[in-house]
Amino acid sequence: MINLHDKIDKINDFFSPKIVGEANGQYIKVVKILGKKVPWHNHVHEDESFYIIKGELSMEIKGEKPFKMKKGDLFIVQKGVSHRVSSDNECHIMLIEPKSTTHTGEVKSTITKTLED
Amino acid sequence: MINLHDKIDKINDFFSPKIVGEANGQYIKVVKILGKKVPWHNHVHEDESFYIIKGELSMEIKGEKPFKMKKGDLFIVQKGVSHRVSSDNECHIMLIEPKSTTHTGEVKSTITKTLED
Repeated sequence: MINLHDKIDKINDFFSPKIVGEANGQYIKVVKILGKKVPWHNHVHEDESFYIIKGELSMEIKGEKPFKMKKGDLFIVQKGVSHRVSSDNECHIMLIEPKSTTHTGEVKSTITKTLED
Repeated sequence: MINLHDKIDKINDFFSPKIVGEANGQYIKVVKILGKKVPWHNHVHEDESFYIIKGELSMEIKGEKPFKMKKGDLFIVQKGVSHRVSSDNECHIMLIEPKSTTHTGEVKSTITKTLED
């Protein structure tokens, strides 16, 4: 068993998802977001679920009006859909996505981590 | 987008999981637990992830010491592992499990819902 609040409190870096569980070929991860470092990207074969644990997340979907997500909000970005996220204040998120998912898709940026990271 | 706190507040019945999202062949569900109505059961082919949104859940794993889960706790019951859950006070949970999962496994009980429900 793992407490996600405790886990997130121990994370020092932003935009660096940490794996907290694995089930049915999916990883459950937690990540801290602050700022606008995530580039536009998509995951060709994977849906990506965002659940807000704390704070507020700005979600942008290509061609749609941006919207804010707050604590308790769940949103699923469908495979292939271009998106990016940012936050003006520290935001804590749970992510659920297949093990094969790279967090910035095929796009490389300053925050990109490989699956080995 | 769906707010899970709002969704749970609108649920009237206990032990009756409601689907709030679908991603990569998995359902994300919310459920309210109060009491001890869940029978011992297992899911032969599916891992089941429990995340506590509110309250406290008693988790029992066959052959192991029972333990309490509190807000923010994540626990994954591996496929085939016999388990049951209960709560002395109202508890709100997020469940993540494959679409094929029946909530009480092969075991039929007073709370059992079919996938069609």
